[in-house]
Amino acid sequence: MNEIYLDNSATTRTSDSAAAKAVQIMTQLYGNPSSLHSKGLEAEHELKKAREIVASSIGAAPGEIYFTSGGTEANNTAVFGAAKALCRRGKRIVTTAIEHSSVIESMQQLEREGFEVIYLTPDKSGRINPDDIKAAVNSDTILVSIMLVNNETGAVQPVETAASAIKRSSSPALLHVDAVQAYLKMPFTTKKLKADLISVSGHKIHGPKGVGALYVRRGVRILPLHYGGEQQEKLRPGTEPLPLICAMAQAVSEYPTGSADNNYIHTLNAHCRRLLSETDGIVINSDESCSDYIINFSAPGLRSETLLHYLEQYGIYVSSGSACAKGHKSHVLSAMGLDSALIDSAVRVSFSHENTMENIDYFINKLETGLHTLARSK
Amino acid sequence: MNEIYLDNSATTRTSDSAAAKAVQIMTQLYGNPSSLHSKGLEAEHELKKAREIVASSIGAAPGEIYFTSGGTEANNTAVFGAAKALCRRGKRIVTTAIEHSSVIESMQQLEREGFEVIYLTPDKSGRINPDDIKAAVNSDTILVSIMLVNNETGAVQPVETAASAIKRSSSPALLHVDAVQAYLKMPFTTKKLKADLISVSGHKIHGPKGVGALYVRRGVRILPLHYGGEQQEKLRPGTEPLPLICAMAQAVSEYPTGSADNNYIHTLNAHCRRLLSETDGIVINSDESCSDYIINFSAPGLRSETLLHYLEQYGIYVSSGSACAKGHKSHVLSAMGLDSALIDSAVRVSFSHENTMENIDYFINKLETGLHTLARSK
Repeated sequence: MNEIYLDNSATTRTSDSAAAKAVQIMTQLYGNPSSLHSKGLEAEHELKKAREIVASSIGAAPGEIYFTSGGTEANNTAVFGAAKALCRRGKRIVTTAIEHSSVIESMQQLEREGFEVIYLTPDKSGRINPDDIKAAVNSDTILVSIMLVNNETGAVQPVETAASAIKRSSSPALLHVDAVQAYLKMPFTTKKLKADLISVSGHKIHGPKGVGALYVRRGVRILPLHYGGEQQEKLRPGTEPLPLICAMAQAVSEYPTGSADNNYIHTLNAHCRRLLSETDGIVINSDESCSDYIINFSAPGLRSETLLHYLEQYGIYVSSGSACAKGHKSHVLSAMGLDSALIDSAVRVSFSHENTMENIDYFINKLETGLHTLARSK
Repeated sequence: MNEIYLDNSATTRTSDSAAAKAVQIMTQLYGNPSSLHSKGLEAEHELKKAREIVASSIGAAPGEIYFTSGGTEANNTAVFGAAKALCRRGKRIVTTAIEHSSVIESMQQLEREGFEVIYLTPDKSGRINPDDIKAAVNSDTILVSIMLVNNETGAVQPVETAASAIKRSSSPALLHVDAVQAYLKMPFTTKKLKADLISVSGHKIHGPKGVGALYVRRGVRILPLHYGGEQQEKLRPGTEPLPLICAMAQAVSEYPTGSADNNYIHTLNAHCRRLLSETDGIVINSDESCSDYIINFSAPGLRSETLLHYLEQYGIYVSSGSACAKGHKSHVLSAMGLDSALIDSAVRVSFSHENTMENIDYFINKLETGLHTLARSK
C-alpha cells in the first residue's frame, strides 16, 4: 500500500542524503569535536560547516547558532534562559495562549516561580491582534515569546509588531520567536524578524529527530539550561550530537526554498483547500492567510480520531491537532473560541514537497467516502 | 594510514549495525511516536523495544528509563531534578571533586542558588575513601552524586557505600550514580548499585552521539529540566530522538559483555600496562584496580599535547585528560594531589573491543620513539 503522509508538521521523513550524512559521521568522522587530535579536528570542522549552513539559512552569524536536542529544548532554553537572565529587571512576560506546549508549560513553571505571564488570545482566525501585543508590553516586561507560524492551524503571527512594541516600551524585554513550523517554509531572516532568540528544529524539514537550534542574537545574554563542559560557549554543554547536526545541515542545504518550490506547496494547498471547501460537512479552520504547509479542518459530528483511523486504512496519515498533545483537546482551537463540535472533529493535514497533487486527490476521495460511511454507521 | 583509535572514553565509532538501525528509523519508520495513526504507532513500538533493551541491560523496568540527549543531560536532570524536588527537606548535597563537568558545574550552579555542596577528594589512587562518604552524609543531606568509574583515570568509586551511608543517616537523600564510563564495561544492576538515579550514554558504547538515558527508580520523584509535551511522562518532553534511541539500543544489544569479552579488554590493558611500565620516563597514574578500559599515564617533562600530536602523525589517537575539558588542567588529577609535572604530561588511553594487541604494540613503539625524539628536540 502506498503511503500518503500528510502529517509533515508532526515530523517528516529524513531525506536519504541527510541520513547518509549521519552515517558518514557516525562511522567515519566519529571523533569528538572537543578532542585535540586530528580525529577530533575533522569532527570540529564538520561541526563548523554545519553551523555555517544553519546560520546562513536565517541570515545569522555562525556564532549566533547553538545546537539543541530539538525544538522543545530550544524553546525551553530561550524562555528559561531569558527569564533567569533578566529576573532582576522585571517579572512580566508576554506570550500567547496558542504557543507550543514547550513554551506554554515553561511559562506555567515560571508562574510557579513568581513570574507574571500574560497569555494573549487569538481571534477566530487564530491570529493574535497586533494591538493586543502593543497593549501588553510595558516597561516591566522582560520577555515576549510568540510563535511565527502556529503548528495546528498554520496561522501566521504578527511577530514584527512584538519587536516594535518592545522598542516603544523602553523595556529590557527580549523577543523570542518559536519558528519551528516556519523555518525554511516561510523563509525569514533574523534582520526581518528583529528577534533576539529564534527556535528551529531539524525533523520538521526532512532532517532527523533529536536536533534543533537556538539563534541567540550577538550581545544577548541568557542563562543556560544545561551545565557541563566547554562546548557551545557553555550555553549548551555536552558532546555535540554531530551525526544529527550534520544531517540537519544537509537537510537545510537541500530544502527547496525557491519561488517555484513555494508555488508548488501553494498549489497543493490551494487544490486541497478547493476540494475541501466543495466537500459537504467540512469546515475549514485555517483561512487563506495561513502558512501554505498546513490546513486544519473539521467534520462536525465525527470525532477526529475516527476519521484519522478511517484514513489510515488507506495509508493516508493525518493528525488530530498536534502530535505533542496526544489525545488532548486542542488548546489552540479552544483559544480561538471554536465550538466544541469543531474542536472535537478537527483534523490537520500538513504538506511536504514529497506530496503530489494525486496524493491530495486520493486523500479527498477517501475523505468523502469516509464521511459517508462513518455517518451511516453512527 | 591505519587508525589506531585509543580514545574510546571520549567517544566511540558508531557500529555499522547501529548506524543502519538509525537509517531505517530515519527513512522508513519515521513517524512521530506521539502520532495517533499507525505510522506513529510503529514508531512507538520501536521506542518501546529500545526502552526494554536499555532497561534490561541494567536490570531496570522499562518504565524506569528516560531517554535524554546524552550523559550531560542525564546528569543535569538527576542533579537539578533531585535538588529541586527535595529542596524543602534540606540543602546539603554530597559529591566528589572528580565528577564529570556536567555534575561539577551543576553543583556549582546549585551553590549559587543556596545549596551547600560537599566535594569529597580522592586519595592518590583516584579513589574516594568510603569512610569520607559515611562521614559526609548526615540527616540533612538530600542528594549524593558519585560516579562509578572516573572518566580520566578509570578509578572505581565506592558507590555501594553511598547507598548504605544514606540508609544509616535516615536522610531523605537520593543517590545518583554517573555510570557513563561504567555502562556495559563494568556491568552493574540497579539492584546491586542501590542507586535512585543512574546516568548512561550511547556514544561511549558504539552508539551515536546525542542520546543517553537516566534511570529513575520506581517511586522516586524528581522535577524535570525540560517542560513541554506529554512524552516520557513529562519528565523529558519533546519528540523522542527515535533514530538515536534505536541505534543506542542496537549498540547495547550487541555490546560484548561476556566473560571472554571482559577478559579480552583485561588482556589488552595488562599488555599495555606492562609495556608502559617497562618504558623509561613513564609514570602510570591508573593503578590495577581501575577499570580495564582506561589507563592514564604521564611522561614528566613532556606536555600532554606534544605527545598527543606526535602520536597522531601515525594515526594513533589518545587524549590529554577528558575531551570535555579541552586544554584545561585536569581537575581530577589535581584533586588526586599529583605533581604538576605529572598533571601537565598526563595522557589517557582508552580501549574498545575494536582495538587489537598489535594496536597496543604499535602505540608503545611510537610512544618510545616519541619520547626519545621529543626529549632530544627540547
